[in-house]
Amino acid sequence: MTKENIATYFQELQSDIINDLEKADGTGVFITDNWERAEGGGGKTCVLQNGRIIEKGGVNFSAVHGPLAPEVSKMMHVAPGDFFATGVSIVIHPHNPFVPIIHMNVRYFEMSSGEYWFGGGIDLTPHYIQDDQAQSFHTHIKNVCDKHSPDFYTQFKEWADRYFFIPHRNETRGIGGIFFDRLNDSTVAKSKEEIHGFVMDVGHSFAPIYTQFMRDNYNKPFIEAHKRWQLLRRGRYVEFNLVYDKGTRFGLETGGRIESILMSLPKLASWEYDVQVEKGSAEAKTLSLLKKGIDWL
Amino acid sequence: MTKENIATYFQELQSDIINDLEKADGTGVFITDNWERAEGGGGKTCVLQNGRIIEKGGVNFSAVHGPLAPEVSKMMHVAPGDFFATGVSIVIHPHNPFVPIIHMNVRYFEMSSGEYWFGGGIDLTPHYIQDDQAQSFHTHIKNVCDKHSPDFYTQFKEWADRYFFIPHRNETRGIGGIFFDRLNDSTVAKSKEEIHGFVMDVGHSFAPIYTQFMRDNYNKPFIEAHKRWQLLRRGRYVEFNLVYDKGTRFGLETGGRIESILMSLPKLASWEYDVQVEKGSAEAKTLSLLKKGIDWL
Repeated sequence: MTKENIATYFQELQSDIINDLEKADGTGVFITDNWERAEGGGGKTCVLQNGRIIEKGGVNFSAVHGPLAPEVSKMMHVAPGDFFATGVSIVIHPHNPFVPIIHMNVRYFEMSSGEYWFGGGIDLTPHYIQDDQAQSFHTHIKNVCDKHSPDFYTQFKEWADRYFFIPHRNETRGIGGIFFDRLNDSTVAKSKEEIHGFVMDVGHSFAPIYTQFMRDNYNKPFIEAHKRWQLLRRGRYVEFNLVYDKGTRFGLETGGRIESILMSLPKLASWEYDVQVEKGSAEAKTLSLLKKGIDWL
Repeated sequence: MTKENIATYFQELQSDIINDLEKADGTGVFITDNWERAEGGGGKTCVLQNGRIIEKGGVNFSAVHGPLAPEVSKMMHVAPGDFFATGVSIVIHPHNPFVPIIHMNVRYFEMSSGEYWFGGGIDLTPHYIQDDQAQSFHTHIKNVCDKHSPDFYTQFKEWADRYFFIPHRNETRGIGGIFFDRLNDSTVAKSKEEIHGFVMDVGHSFAPIYTQFMRDNYNKPFIEAHKRWQLLRRGRYVEFNLVYDKGTRFGLETGGRIESILMSLPKLASWEYDVQVEKGSAEAKTLSLLKKGIDWL
């Protein structure tokens, strides 16, 4: 399992997901930007805008390498040397407020010293939380985890609750999912091949899960009030990504390709002053469920 | 010149500005939220939404005090003790893309040790940079500065260029203005009263400058393409405020009143992937002028 193999698997995953999303969307087409990094490596950024179901979605692949800047190696707690990093990152913002926002990321990191790890996660941000959708999402994710370890779902679901959290709002970003980082043969009792198998299963779970949510919800009728709420929830998504998301902040600080990093931001987002929701409304229900530690199963 | 006096002057300034903005807007009315801080002090947040000219604008006053958290005193490079901080903060987002966004802040900080300073700034972010407007803005600001010191404009204009800058975009936020911090009798050759006089002059320059820009531009015809560009420029404003603005980040990290801190964000903002502007267009001209070191006079 060389780093080149891993990158190739990720690139195939990107291609598979793009095909599945285009098929499910029906009219939207991803545009592709291949880019190179001056210091080594590059990537392929694929963005779909103004589709039938997807308003804006990005599916990015990158495989970059080169010397690790001293401040970065310090920040990452690794010894200085050359790094290699590859991954696939996805964020999808749909038109219809009843289709949830989704994010998925799988990644692999290796130092010239031989130190390596896998990381990733998948989390769902419904503008309106629906119990059956939340249950279905977590059941799917749990099944993927359970195939690989009885501990993964519980452990990585808690990690997601902690990670996808907006402290200044005291809200989770959505209904969570799983998040994991620094998985290798010394942090989990698995071989590199086994961990890779888990990560690829997470990656391949994305399209079936999300295209189902697209099909189930894209045609639901909505009114202006639902759209307004969607744009406000997207405002929170922007807050999380610009203020807390480690990948985004790392990219901004290390001079990554800005259009690829910020493809996660929605076409339109809104902020209004001190919005109050009606007691007993669907908006109030959603807010009441943006908490850590909920058992969605 | 006690801290209580200074806070009272600031509160009057807030009230004056609100009156002037409501008069210029014509239909918009500020709603007022008085709030208290558990650890000491409080503030008055005033927000105008959906006016005739102003889409969303906030004029905040606060005067807070209490023990300074150790991590904050370290971050601010002051010895531990009790702090007192008061200020007025303004951000205005207009409807019409030809009315610029504006920001103004004046503030005073004092430690129980007696250490004190004034800070503040005013900067203009036109969605479309107009030469005469830029010149008028900087001329006004320079006149205010020149009344107090021949060095202030040059020095504080450079400071604004450095501060109101978005590194990941390699763009200034707008056409700058002035920014200054930690002014006291040991950092500038002025008495506390003289510095206070300068800061109040900056504060009182806000309404005449901005209401003129409102009157001159609110009625200009615009098309969908101008609105689209305005929302994209607002996206950059959001990026600056959430990623770099020290006041915002300080507020988020220290648990300030979130609705007051984030009143600076626009009602609507937009992100599209890799937007290209037409050569020779007004958009291209604006982008070409988002640079440090331009002499606008």
